[in-house]
Amino acid sequence: MKPLVGIIMGSDSDLTVMQTASDLLKEFGIAHEVTVVSAHRTPLRMVDYAQKAKKRGLKVIIAGAGGAAHLPGMVASITSLPVIGVPIKSSNSIDGWDSVLSILQMPNGVPVATVALNAAKNAGILAAEIIGTFDAKVSKKVTTFKNSLSNDVIKKVEKMKKAGWENKFD
Amino acid sequence: MKPLVGIIMGSDSDLTVMQTASDLLKEFGIAHEVTVVSAHRTPLRMVDYAQKAKKRGLKVIIAGAGGAAHLPGMVASITSLPVIGVPIKSSNSIDGWDSVLSILQMPNGVPVATVALNAAKNAGILAAEIIGTFDAKVSKKVTTFKNSLSNDVIKKVEKMKKAGWENKFD
Amino acid sequence: MKPLVGIIMGSDSDLTVMQTASDLLKEFGIAHEVTVVSAHRTPLRMVDYAQKAKKRGLKVIIAGAGGAAHLPGMVASITSLPVIGVPIKSSNSIDGWDSVLSILQMPNGVPVATVALNAAKNAGILAAEIIGTFDAKVSKKVTTFKNSLSNDVIKKVEKMKKAGWENKFD
Amino acid sequence: MKPLVGIIMGSDSDLTVMQTASDLLKEFGIAHEVTVVSAHRTPLRMVDYAQKAKKRGLKVIIAGAGGAAHLPGMVASITSLPVIGVPIKSSNSIDGWDSVLSILQMPNGVPVATVALNAAKNAGILAAEIIGTFDAKVSKKVTTFKNSLSNDVIKKVEKMKKAGWENKFD
Amino acid sequence: MKPLVGIIMGSDSDLTVMQTASDLLKEFGIAHEVTVVSAHRTPLRMVDYAQKAKKRGLKVIIAGAGGAAHLPGMVASITSLPVIGVPIKSSNSIDGWDSVLSILQMPNGVPVATVALNAAKNAGILAAEIIGTFDAKVSKKVTTFKNSLSNDVIKKVEKMKKAGWENKFD
Amino acid sequence: MKPLVGIIMGSDSDLTVMQTASDLLKEFGIAHEVTVVSAHRTPLRMVDYAQKAKKRGLKVIIAGAGGAAHLPGMVASITSLPVIGVPIKSSNSIDGWDSVLSILQMPNGVPVATVALNAAKNAGILAAEIIGTFDAKVSKKVTTFKNSLSNDVIKKVEKMKKAGWENKFD
Amino acid sequence: MKPLVGIIMGSDSDLTVMQTASDLLKEFGIAHEVTVVSAHRTPLRMVDYAQKAKKRGLKVIIAGAGGAAHLPGMVASITSLPVIGVPIKSSNSIDGWDSVLSILQMPNGVPVATVALNAAKNAGILAAEIIGTFDAKVSKKVTTFKNSLSNDVIKKVEKMKKAGWENKFD
Amino acid sequence: MKPLVGIIMGSDSDLTVMQTASDLLKEFGIAHEVTVVSAHRTPLRMVDYAQKAKKRGLKVIIAGAGGAAHLPGMVASITSLPVIGVPIKSSNSIDGWDSVLSILQMPNGVPVATVALNAAKNAGILAAEIIGTFDAKVSKKVTTFKNSLSNDVIKKVEKMKKAGWENKFD
Repeated sequence: MKPLVGIIMGSDSDLTVMQTASDLLKEFGIAHEVTVVSAHRTPLRMVDYAQKAKKRGLKVIIAGAGGAAHLPGMVASITSLPVIGVPIKSSNSIDGWDSVLSILQMPNGVPVATVALNAAKNAGILAAEIIGTFDAKVSKKVTTFKNSLSNDVIKKVEKMKKAGWENKFD
Repeated sequence: MKPLVGIIMGSDSDLTVMQTASDLLKEFGIAHEVTVVSAHRTPLRMVDYAQKAKKRGLKVIIAGAGGAAHLPGMVASITSLPVIGVPIKSSNSIDGWDSVLSILQMPNGVPVATVALNAAKNAGILAAEIIGTFDAKVSKKVTTFKNSLSNDVIKKVEKMKKAGWENKFD
Repeated sequence: MKPLVGIIMGSDSDLTVMQTASDLLKEFGIAHEVTVVSAHRTPLRMVDYAQKAKKRGLKVIIAGAGGAAHLPGMVASITSLPVIGVPIKSSNSIDGWDSVLSILQMPNGVPVATVALNAAKNAGILAAEIIGTFDAKVSKKVTTFKNSLSNDVIKKVEKMKKAGWENKFD
Repeated sequence: MKPLVGIIMGSDSDLTVMQTASDLLKEFGIAHEVTVVSAHRTPLRMVDYAQKAKKRGLKVIIAGAGGAAHLPGMVASITSLPVIGVPIKSSNSIDGWDSVLSILQMPNGVPVATVALNAAKNAGILAAEIIGTFDAKVSKKVTTFKNSLSNDVIKKVEKMKKAGWENKFD
Repeated sequence: MKPLVGIIMGSDSDLTVMQTASDLLKEFGIAHEVTVVSAHRTPLRMVDYAQKAKKRGLKVIIAGAGGAAHLPGMVASITSLPVIGVPIKSSNSIDGWDSVLSILQMPNGVPVATVALNAAKNAGILAAEIIGTFDAKVSKKVTTFKNSLSNDVIKKVEKMKKAGWENKFD
Repeated sequence: MKPLVGIIMGSDSDLTVMQTASDLLKEFGIAHEVTVVSAHRTPLRMVDYAQKAKKRGLKVIIAGAGGAAHLPGMVASITSLPVIGVPIKSSNSIDGWDSVLSILQMPNGVPVATVALNAAKNAGILAAEIIGTFDAKVSKKVTTFKNSLSNDVIKKVEKMKKAGWENKFD
Repeated sequence: MKPLVGIIMGSDSDLTVMQTASDLLKEFGIAHEVTVVSAHRTPLRMVDYAQKAKKRGLKVIIAGAGGAAHLPGMVASITSLPVIGVPIKSSNSIDGWDSVLSILQMPNGVPVATVALNAAKNAGILAAEIIGTFDAKVSKKVTTFKNSLSNDVIKKVEKMKKAGWENKFD
Repeated sequence: MKPLVGIIMGSDSDLTVMQTASDLLKEFGIAHEVTVVSAHRTPLRMVDYAQKAKKRGLKVIIAGAGGAAHLPGMVASITSLPVIGVPIKSSNSIDGWDSVLSILQMPNGVPVATVALNAAKNAGILAAEIIGTFDAKVSKKVTTFKNSLSNDVIKKVEKMKKAGWENKFD
């Protein structure tokens, strides 16, 4: 099956964070691919990846990067696909501020859809929501998923009541 | 024509920033609507808007807010449509950090596609890119638009050469 | 006994922080309840909780949340009860700044009484001070509690003197 | 009529910000007083004010201060009344961060109910909410006030529709 | 011997940081005292301490505090002695910013001589420098101490050369 | 009369800020000198100034600087006199954070007595407090000055009462 | 004369800042060129510029950019010439932090020589210092320039003395 | 062989960070020296080192420092060689911001080529790039090195494919 979402990251060490995006897409049955593309170590590979992405059938690109994180923004400058940026709190990062601001503060004309620090799972969900704009099945899965969040909370409510916490609301 | 994109904001005073999102969508010929929905002043209207958005045919929601900006995240918690958040640097904001962090740092399960501070135009482009995932015409327009950015730069290159700036590259 | 204070939080994992609010209220003999209400995972439950709070006899709501912390502000937008917000430094938080600013920087019309990062105990004391505005017994307990802080310091003064630290003041 | 709320500030130059707290309380018909009490210029007056506040019949204290803002926290250390702190962005402030953190980050045992930067109006509303815990008339006024926020938004919705903005929701 | 320097802190838990100030003064043979004075837990003790400090013969006060650190500034508002403030990075501090700004950003008229985060040793040296303005012996000791810093570096230079690091300068 | 305090700054453009230090010392009758010494433009002059300061009879040095502000710390590394640092918010400063941190965060062994951003007046008062440790007349003047701050507040209290502000405290 | 230094920037609007780099190089007689190259609007032009820079005889590249500033780092990823990055405080920047961190925090393997916010003049001087490592004439000019900074200060010293400021040092 | 690059740092404890600069230069066969020079503990040694650097044949100086990091800037004020500054995140640093800003934000006339926090390896590469402006062999080594970064990425791409990650691009 042709991948609809391309997940790229600067190094395989980012995989511990980025894997949750892939897990989510698998859970939703969305075909995707995962590879390493570095803006600073393989700039030409990055250009190549971005230039071919649309023709290869990708619908969304998820790009994770840390520090002076240029990968999401540079890819967005070359493709007209929506690009989701995941700021990663790498070692020697200044508390994550560097990757957040390098990804978020893009100039007029070249947006990156930025999610929270290390929030690769949310990048996966956002990708699914985008796919869902034209694929009703996926859209329904997102709806089901969001409803399930509510169920998790209700279970915790019950758990706390059993543990003896006073609760006159429920 | 039924709107595909809903642009909402907490107050009509945000319109000076948010208008550029509408302008962009007009330029791309994407039907959209613009109204005021406040998370804190009209919480129930917000719930109502988010609950009906998908059924009403919207594909993307763009939500702008300043300060403790809850509108984009709350809407995202109710709908399964992609929600684009525009942090607005309002008066008494702490340099925009409050709106940026309130919109960006969403918990697992509920992403908001955050763009740069005051970058409503980029929110419009991102919405177009998302529409473009299922509408080839729009996708083509985004490609044309991004190419035009390049042309603007080339014109500036020429302008600077004429102004007498040394340039052996071009 | 009907609870006067409602303590709510986004997840039971916040309980390690929020428990000190409950402990304090127990110590002061103030009836209260504790449950999970998530702005982003159970938005409708949150609306419901906030809408019924006053009629159910609650006098104060304490809401703890981390990251893009919308729970305290959203509850405050629906109820006319005083809402105390506790910013929680969750994992992947950007040093707690996100929850602090998301809770504190509320727009005109919808205040949240924000306390320090992770300071659920102080939220409990503040709730007691509010109850104390109409319940003289509770007010007296707060006074006694604040005086006891002084006694603790005096004991430390003595302890340090015994440990041989020069002190000509006492 | 004996004042229920004491509004204090470090200098009469803070009055431009703090006046909105008084305006709000007037609107709600809540008796209050307004004066200058400086933690750093009149420390003994501050102690005196805090020590007598409860006996004088005050129910809530609103204290505004800028820079290294010690007034709210010091008053809270002496009285058992709820103290609302208003961080003020004074000249030479480091973007307001100094007053926000000096007021918010109080140690265990001594809470200050902190509101947003310069948000004296919200301090007034919060005071009314606290008074409302024992005075049903005031509580009702707060409810009415919060509902009116919604009406303001609805008027803006209408205004924008008349100005020709597409809106299929309303 | 009457103490010339008073070292105060909000809690005996601050002693791990503040002890180095005492160690330094001992090394310099400067009589001093060490005790607990809390701005928020013992406000009246703090006033008392500050009011009597000069008459008791103190020449300098060193005050350490964390979070919303009011102790140094409040003591400085009451005494005309120089007050040295030591910001302490306590637990739940927002990276130390809160204590740094609460101590440093004092208003016109009431300075606090602020040193680096946790830099109690430097507070001790600064106190010695102040004593040295009227006590030539102490001033000489400070000079000797600062020269010794240079010697320590020279030893490290030698150590590194012995470890085989190329060095054509020395 | 030989100067007791040396006021130095990196450029005569800093004079608009630093002048208030001189004004204060004049008011207190403390002999002082004012000149330009730049760490980065005249490093050897700076070394020379710092080396001779004590022998020339100076008791305190006040050094103001902006941006990467090295002047106070470098002077402190050479002299054993107390050095007061005034962070100046210069153009192109990053909101003053650069000068604050460059002056405050000195390593062990070399303290700088840092005052608030642009707070040259407080530097003057602190210098007077230090002189006051051996000159009773100056110490008395500082006491009088601090008392006068209180009087200013009392006048404002009166002014506000006359303007019709309710005040049952005074 | 073939340019040794290439000055590039994202837009001609950056010219007001970047011009000082060109002015400085002119003053030093260093051949250079100035043009617009945008990482986000002309990614391929950027790759082309960086790939040819060395062969075209350039020795240093100065790249200025604001917001999520990717130009300096991306150019550095392609060329082995030293790249000097100038963070520019553009409108909608978050106080310049975004451009500073996007340029400075490059990953291992791809350095950018970052100068202060808006400090294009310093970028010019640094370029001259680099040229000076192989061109003794330029190196001498840098030395003369740095000495002249000292002379400027000495003139200010004289000016202040004439204006009547006490100064016993000179 | 005469050293071309001087690596200096404030303390031998900085060696764990700074060593990677030396390792890199060794790898590139660039003669260099490593020693301790402290701006604050050995100011005169620092002046001496900076004054002699050029005559001793050095082409570039790499200076690492933490906290209020004055070493790079002070050396740059004395020599006309390019100075590379390495901000080090020392203990008691405020998250590295202090060293970054103290090194980066130099005034007009005295640039420091600043690299990322703890990025001593990048300082080594930058030094090699500067040497490469006049030494074609070194320049070629830098080119080879940067190409090798690409190879490392390609290996990771292969590794991930073997581990079973879907990848239709390669």
